[in-house]
Amino acid sequence: MIIWSSLSKLEKKTALSRPAMANSQQLKQTVGDIIASVESKGDAAVIDFTRKFDYPDLQSLVLSQENIDTLASSVTAEVAGAIDIAFNNIKAFHDAQLPSDIALTTTPGVNCELRFTPLDAVGLYIPGGSAPLPSTVLMLGVPALVAGCDNKLLCTPPNKQGLIAPEIAYAARKCGIEAIYLCGGAQAIAAMALGTDTIPQVDKIFGPGNSFVTEAKQQVSLRADGAAIDMPAGPSEVLVLADEFADAEFVASDLLSQAEHGPDSQAILVSNSEALIESAKAAVERQLSTLSRADIARPAMENARYILADSIDDAILVSNAYAPEHLIVQIEDARSLLPKIKYAGSIFLGPWSPESAGDYASGTNHVLPTYGYAKNYSSLGLLDFMRRYTIQELSADGMRNLGPAIMALASAEGLDAHEQAVALRMQKLANANDKGDA
Amino acid sequence: MIIWSSLSKLEKKTALSRPAMANSQQLKQTVGDIIASVESKGDAAVIDFTRKFDYPDLQSLVLSQENIDTLASSVTAEVAGAIDIAFNNIKAFHDAQLPSDIALTTTPGVNCELRFTPLDAVGLYIPGGSAPLPSTVLMLGVPALVAGCDNKLLCTPPNKQGLIAPEIAYAARKCGIEAIYLCGGAQAIAAMALGTDTIPQVDKIFGPGNSFVTEAKQQVSLRADGAAIDMPAGPSEVLVLADEFADAEFVASDLLSQAEHGPDSQAILVSNSEALIESAKAAVERQLSTLSRADIARPAMENARYILADSIDDAILVSNAYAPEHLIVQIEDARSLLPKIKYAGSIFLGPWSPESAGDYASGTNHVLPTYGYAKNYSSLGLLDFMRRYTIQELSADGMRNLGPAIMALASAEGLDAHEQAVALRMQKLANANDKGDA
Repeated sequence: MIIWSSLSKLEKKTALSRPAMANSQQLKQTVGDIIASVESKGDAAVIDFTRKFDYPDLQSLVLSQENIDTLASSVTAEVAGAIDIAFNNIKAFHDAQLPSDIALTTTPGVNCELRFTPLDAVGLYIPGGSAPLPSTVLMLGVPALVAGCDNKLLCTPPNKQGLIAPEIAYAARKCGIEAIYLCGGAQAIAAMALGTDTIPQVDKIFGPGNSFVTEAKQQVSLRADGAAIDMPAGPSEVLVLADEFADAEFVASDLLSQAEHGPDSQAILVSNSEALIESAKAAVERQLSTLSRADIARPAMENARYILADSIDDAILVSNAYAPEHLIVQIEDARSLLPKIKYAGSIFLGPWSPESAGDYASGTNHVLPTYGYAKNYSSLGLLDFMRRYTIQELSADGMRNLGPAIMALASAEGLDAHEQAVALRMQKLANANDKGDA
Repeated sequence: MIIWSSLSKLEKKTALSRPAMANSQQLKQTVGDIIASVESKGDAAVIDFTRKFDYPDLQSLVLSQENIDTLASSVTAEVAGAIDIAFNNIKAFHDAQLPSDIALTTTPGVNCELRFTPLDAVGLYIPGGSAPLPSTVLMLGVPALVAGCDNKLLCTPPNKQGLIAPEIAYAARKCGIEAIYLCGGAQAIAAMALGTDTIPQVDKIFGPGNSFVTEAKQQVSLRADGAAIDMPAGPSEVLVLADEFADAEFVASDLLSQAEHGPDSQAILVSNSEALIESAKAAVERQLSTLSRADIARPAMENARYILADSIDDAILVSNAYAPEHLIVQIEDARSLLPKIKYAGSIFLGPWSPESAGDYASGTNHVLPTYGYAKNYSSLGLLDFMRRYTIQELSADGMRNLGPAIMALASAEGLDAHEQAVALRMQKLANANDKGDA
């Protein structure tokens, strides 16, 4: 247990430090080579890498519509029903985010508009690995559907049968995803960013992944012929704020929910109650022994931090300094604390709001800024699947009204041609006036 | 003149190609060294670089409030009035973009919220160079003011007097910018991203610049301890769509407005009228000879492209393929073409809407995606100065209603602890029920 008030400034910083991210020169080089290979050899390179890393017998990168149908219909009724419920909640919450276009007359005769439009083509990346992630399909696919993106494609590595998990096929169908490609890793990111004969180029790539995927997303986002990406990534993390009234078993289960994501997951408990911290620690040990993923959660919990703060206000300051991806507030009248909370990707209020609720089904998006990025990036939302552009239209009167100001500013900046573009128009209007149009 | 329908697919691509951007290994290294130097030596490094590149006698990085006042009050009444008009229009258009928070009950007892909040600290970069740019101060400063960012600082290189242009001081005052620092280039970007004793660290950096500034913004945006940035940058560009009814002098003046920004500026005219193209070319020659910045505009116009399309619809397809930063539509009933126009940072409709209007005073933002980024990035707006986060709060009923779906999904993903976090809560509710609470 860390006693916050006893720490020096430097010790406080260390207590909240995150693990270094893999960004070695070696990783950059390997990923750069994969991207170059996909760029020069296209599908052949993507197939080669997929055979090497995922499924040796791969014949085609395309998962056929027939296979998708068969897989989707093999999902159990219970899981299909759960996906349906999650889909509906996530859709409702993202429907509510649909923005309104703006039209405004700023000066008589000067009309300005801001319009929102969906991105044309989006690429959704779903990692393979130890468990299928239909929830991530929903978190990426539903906003793409609600935004109205014309082309929604999904890349995910094939499993040992050369297919994908039925739940992923079912969730993808719900979201109207048009195509599923059997590839993962940096090669999938490169294919979506640059396009191959089989895999169309997309405008923006979304989704989580390992260090190769993260590095590849970064590299393609720096290329003008590449793709935009959702947000920078880091290991997942939770910070739980709890007082003496919190249920220690609940607190422990929320810390462990985070820990089971991966050995580099960060779990932090901050409380003003030493008794709560002690009972949460004991509950963690008890629950840990029952988990099937204990071998993943245990090393993560070895890096867990239990911080004792002098007061609830101090505990909130610790959370603000950390800027957690997930912030769980198990304090009496949790909502009343919101005005003091500065940074978090998503906030879970009260005893009945575990992280699992937002991870799966409450309606909020589970793609959130990690690694302190909650200070300057947003949680994923509908707007990330759209772009904004502006329109302006001046009438002759608008030009008469605004022309002199534009000319004065252009002149102050020494930009003659900008000034002349207005002067010529003002002159034409003056000439028209002279001819009796006044 | 390029006859579009005569070109092969490859020739079309070449006709719309943009100049390669400077991103040599040398540039990366130089900028990386500058950032490392600012990181290790702080203010001393920033002062050294500024003395070397901008003003040898620099004493302090801070432009005193007294100096700002004196400079601001020395602006002529005409220019001050023009800045006031531009400020009011830009403010009105960005005020209209203020988003509304969302609160939604997705399932009975499950409340989800999306909240918008201003970024805390933003760094605005204003280049030095041949002309002061008060308009850019407004385009960055007004949305920061409207968003409500607590800390708005501005970096700009000192001029030959060790000061800044009075117009910049005046515009900065209007926007409530709290501090102005006398530095530019990669060193200014590094200082804002990492912080020094004098210059506070910011959450996000905005603004245009040369290749050093652009590279520095990219490098700091890749660091977890760095800062977010507004958008990727490229040379400025305009595409003018015109028909036979367009005024050739207006068209020429709009092409030249773009060309005078820099020798790498791109100016493209696409028309279905050969006569209009010929008269626009002649008008460009005539107007060019009168411009004070002809030596900048002339090389840019040597790379200008005049494209003859078979029809207005074809001309729009050319524009969509190019995805211009600025799109000027000087075609009869320009507004009716909007549904066909796919990509542009900002669209200027009709004869009385020159690019200068949006550059300075109509109200729209002049920071726009260039280099084809209009396909996947937005024009700068109020939302870029804010971040979004979510909140969820389940009541006991909410947990009862949603718990089974969450558990089914967690189980399908093999995440026991996620399931357990819900199971424990469901159990507690069931126990409470058994005790007569039902």
